[in-house]
Amino acid sequence: MRSYHIAVVGATGAVGTEMFRVLERRDFPIRSIRPLASMRSAGKAVSFQGEKIAVEELTRNSFRGIDIALFSAGGQIAREFAPIARDSGAIVIDNSSMFRMNPGVPLVIPEINRDDVKLHHGIIANPNCTAAIALMAIYPLHRTFNVERVFAASYQAVSGSGARAIVELEQQVQAFVENRPMRPEVYPHPIAFNVLPQVDLFLETGYTKEEMKMQNEGRRIMHHPKFCASVTCVRVPVYRAHSVAVHAEFTEPVSVKRAHEVLAKAPGIELVDEPAHSRYPTPHSVAGKDNCQVGRVRRDCSFENGLAFWVSGDQLLKGAALNAVQIAELL
Amino acid sequence: MRSYHIAVVGATGAVGTEMFRVLERRDFPIRSIRPLASMRSAGKAVSFQGEKIAVEELTRNSFRGIDIALFSAGGQIAREFAPIARDSGAIVIDNSSMFRMNPGVPLVIPEINRDDVKLHHGIIANPNCTAAIALMAIYPLHRTFNVERVFAASYQAVSGSGARAIVELEQQVQAFVENRPMRPEVYPHPIAFNVLPQVDLFLETGYTKEEMKMQNEGRRIMHHPKFCASVTCVRVPVYRAHSVAVHAEFTEPVSVKRAHEVLAKAPGIELVDEPAHSRYPTPHSVAGKDNCQVGRVRRDCSFENGLAFWVSGDQLLKGAALNAVQIAELL
Repeated sequence: MRSYHIAVVGATGAVGTEMFRVLERRDFPIRSIRPLASMRSAGKAVSFQGEKIAVEELTRNSFRGIDIALFSAGGQIAREFAPIARDSGAIVIDNSSMFRMNPGVPLVIPEINRDDVKLHHGIIANPNCTAAIALMAIYPLHRTFNVERVFAASYQAVSGSGARAIVELEQQVQAFVENRPMRPEVYPHPIAFNVLPQVDLFLETGYTKEEMKMQNEGRRIMHHPKFCASVTCVRVPVYRAHSVAVHAEFTEPVSVKRAHEVLAKAPGIELVDEPAHSRYPTPHSVAGKDNCQVGRVRRDCSFENGLAFWVSGDQLLKGAALNAVQIAELL
Repeated sequence: MRSYHIAVVGATGAVGTEMFRVLERRDFPIRSIRPLASMRSAGKAVSFQGEKIAVEELTRNSFRGIDIALFSAGGQIAREFAPIARDSGAIVIDNSSMFRMNPGVPLVIPEINRDDVKLHHGIIANPNCTAAIALMAIYPLHRTFNVERVFAASYQAVSGSGARAIVELEQQVQAFVENRPMRPEVYPHPIAFNVLPQVDLFLETGYTKEEMKMQNEGRRIMHHPKFCASVTCVRVPVYRAHSVAVHAEFTEPVSVKRAHEVLAKAPGIELVDEPAHSRYPTPHSVAGKDNCQVGRVRRDCSFENGLAFWVSGDQLLKGAALNAVQIAELL
């Protein structure tokens, strides 16, 4: 069995750290692994299969001999270094938004459009975390009922903003408990005991970039160019796992029973829907799990053919590291 | 100027406590004030205009000589004691859901349907907090563009569940910081660093009772029997102030400019909508304020005539105590 030389760019970040855990857990066939990060993190070490591996500074020469480069270091690093990695002979799987809408770059959720991986020219894009988690539930329903549009509101964990945001929430909670003022740095306002209706930058339309990703990326991933999604993205004081309230309209008649059947069989989905026993997905129930959870499935009272439901997923896993490693497994 | 004998039922609860502050702040013409609560709270005292007033146990005889009885003690207490108070000659303003759908009981938000107060037969109902906050923004837009339906998702503070829920969040945060297990009592799952897609009990349809209140109460308050609202209600680890993401469809053509004009003039509403400067409503920005805040107003990308927006309001004030006192002022 062939094994691979792997590089992880952004190795010390919130997603990068998860990459090593996912590679270990899934027994990915690794010949060598090279943690890369900015100069600031060089000298640190990451643990992998019981060993400490020194983090190297990311440079133009970092990708010699690398087969697969897993990027989770943001758009600017991806723009600069993904082409270098590709030209060095590596296949890049990038977690940033930089290449997602590039027609020459496949945008892939393996459970939905695995065959698109074959169309790559050296770079494959990993989808936005919130979009990916929602689409994991929307797509199997789409296959059955044909989705036209969704209205959605998100409840996004701070780890989606990276390791510094986790520390910011911890420090603000501590400040609150000690009755000291909270200092926002990563976010424009305090996030402890607050919710912020802003994720990512604002567009001219009044939507944020994050809010348009479900529609834009959903169209590519589901091969459904008319899919519409109107979304409000909100940051909440949760450490890990995103949730999305979805109200979806379909062209075909829907039923909760059929939706349950479809979701129960869908890959990567766990149906958690016993409201009478207070069983539904929550960030706590899904954190650290590979599968996304769906529950609160009901006939939508404002659509003719509509379903409302609630999806939670660990955005560091399905929304990022897990999905990237699943793509690598397809290669 | 006439002044009144007031009773506050549930005087030591989260809303009851606010009642006294609102009555003070608005200089309500009070001749006497009688704090009432269950036997458990009798013996406690509440402060009002610098004095300590002993809490009395609620009994059948509590309402003698009372002109206005402000109830915020839940549905069971309201069912038992509101008719007694009414029969003693008081006008009851009840904050529970017990009488809200009763055709003989006006359900009133003064900024929307103040004239309905006149139709009372001794009991007037205060609306659900989340519905009230959303309707404060929906109604002025409805008057201009004629609303057909909304999709909404809520971000509801723990104080909406009463004083015990505030303590529960505090204790769970402390447990988390000290790495001890969190004990859920008020809620079925931990609420610290979590979000729970359950507020109130589940109906046969899969919606919760809370989720249907925006439609049911909105129809009565706006005198709009065809208004549709599909809502997902979610509890979040915020101490005070609810927020709602609203996606609304209208029959008339909409524009953000016109919506801004309408909202800027609407009573009880503060327009906070400068996303380029990260100015939008948040629970922190609205806590303790009488006005609800609206922002993130944008053309909805999935409706022909649609607007998306974000409303935050202090649910202990506009959603409860303030609205009740405003109704009392109308009398």
